[in-house]
Amino acid sequence: MTTLIDKLQWRYATKKMNPALPVPQDKLDRILEAVRLTATSSGLQPYEVLLVQDPALRQRIREHAWNQAQVTDASHLLVFAAWDNYTAERINQMFDLTNDVRGFKNEGWEAYRQKLLSVYPQRSAEENFQHAARQAYIGLGTALIAAAEEQVDATPMEGFDPAKVDEILDLKARGLRSVLLLPLGYRQPDGDWLVNLKKVRRAKEQFVSTI
Amino acid sequence: MTTLIDKLQWRYATKKMNPALPVPQDKLDRILEAVRLTATSSGLQPYEVLLVQDPALRQRIREHAWNQAQVTDASHLLVFAAWDNYTAERINQMFDLTNDVRGFKNEGWEAYRQKLLSVYPQRSAEENFQHAARQAYIGLGTALIAAAEEQVDATPMEGFDPAKVDEILDLKARGLRSVLLLPLGYRQPDGDWLVNLKKVRRAKEQFVSTI
Repeated sequence: MTTLIDKLQWRYATKKMNPALPVPQDKLDRILEAVRLTATSSGLQPYEVLLVQDPALRQRIREHAWNQAQVTDASHLLVFAAWDNYTAERINQMFDLTNDVRGFKNEGWEAYRQKLLSVYPQRSAEENFQHAARQAYIGLGTALIAAAEEQVDATPMEGFDPAKVDEILDLKARGLRSVLLLPLGYRQPDGDWLVNLKKVRRAKEQFVSTI
Repeated sequence: MTTLIDKLQWRYATKKMNPALPVPQDKLDRILEAVRLTATSSGLQPYEVLLVQDPALRQRIREHAWNQAQVTDASHLLVFAAWDNYTAERINQMFDLTNDVRGFKNEGWEAYRQKLLSVYPQRSAEENFQHAARQAYIGLGTALIAAAEEQVDATPMEGFDPAKVDEILDLKARGLRSVLLLPLGYRQPDGDWLVNLKKVRRAKEQFVSTI
């Protein structure tokens, strides 16, 4: 399994995770590192990843996620949580960090900072959250590939009550709102109705067109 | 450059594309195939990818994309355009295709179809579009990795006027709304202010936390 296409063919939204098989720490670390490195709009990285290890918290999340067993059965549970707003403080933090890392101030970059500062904090929190949430989906797409590279199974999930999960994880206090769940683990083929079914995608002609 | 981490370290939002260097067709095909194969919510693939080859169209798009030169300089321009709504017809099409490909009807899958049919078409077109647009970001994250695997440069872009691009590409007639631009090509290091600057990301401790 060497090419990206192979990895994408291999992965599927695992329906039954083996609760007895842990994902080794080095694999988990590489998956998280891939998400950290991937692109976000203006490089702001307007989301965080929460690794929920506490079994009681995972049980409570499961109750608000259509009782999907992977939430508790999987080796690890990631929660992608987006910034609830773009504030001047958050924007400045990333621009300051950039200057620190690169060791100099760039005029064009500073003008871009001012542009974002003049636009983002003036928009509604909801509009900003929606924009931040989209970036988390780039992270999700990256995590799915990273997991496949490690031959780790994953189940991307939107099917949960975000307000309840925010409450359970006390995300409001951190200025975050949950967007996606991603259980990581190893498939348990018996009990997984999807494991042997063909992946279905529209034909290329129905998906790509040339103008 | 064998690991995903290497590919993510290599890629950057290319600021200057070499207009004289075309991306070979087989590389482009593999990038598009990766996007086609990646995950979407309920497998609906609620977006399309438009490959804009017509120089006049690309010039017009550039005028509504902050005049970013990559739009016309790059070898290829992809436009990710999401469904403007989830309709019963679109949902049924994917479920029917799934039954066709797998060669049987599955009771659980049919119940899931009914669930989506009872929820999605009743929501507002705007809510549905926003949901579909998020899926395109999974595709974008995938395309960036696929391009890096092919050592092809890319510039993910949200900075354009979607309504104007929809008009230029006549997307309304196709039930689509533009979400993202992705020029693909080869960097031209002279004239690219970003090419030699360090990638900046928040430290792991500020991005991932364990609960």
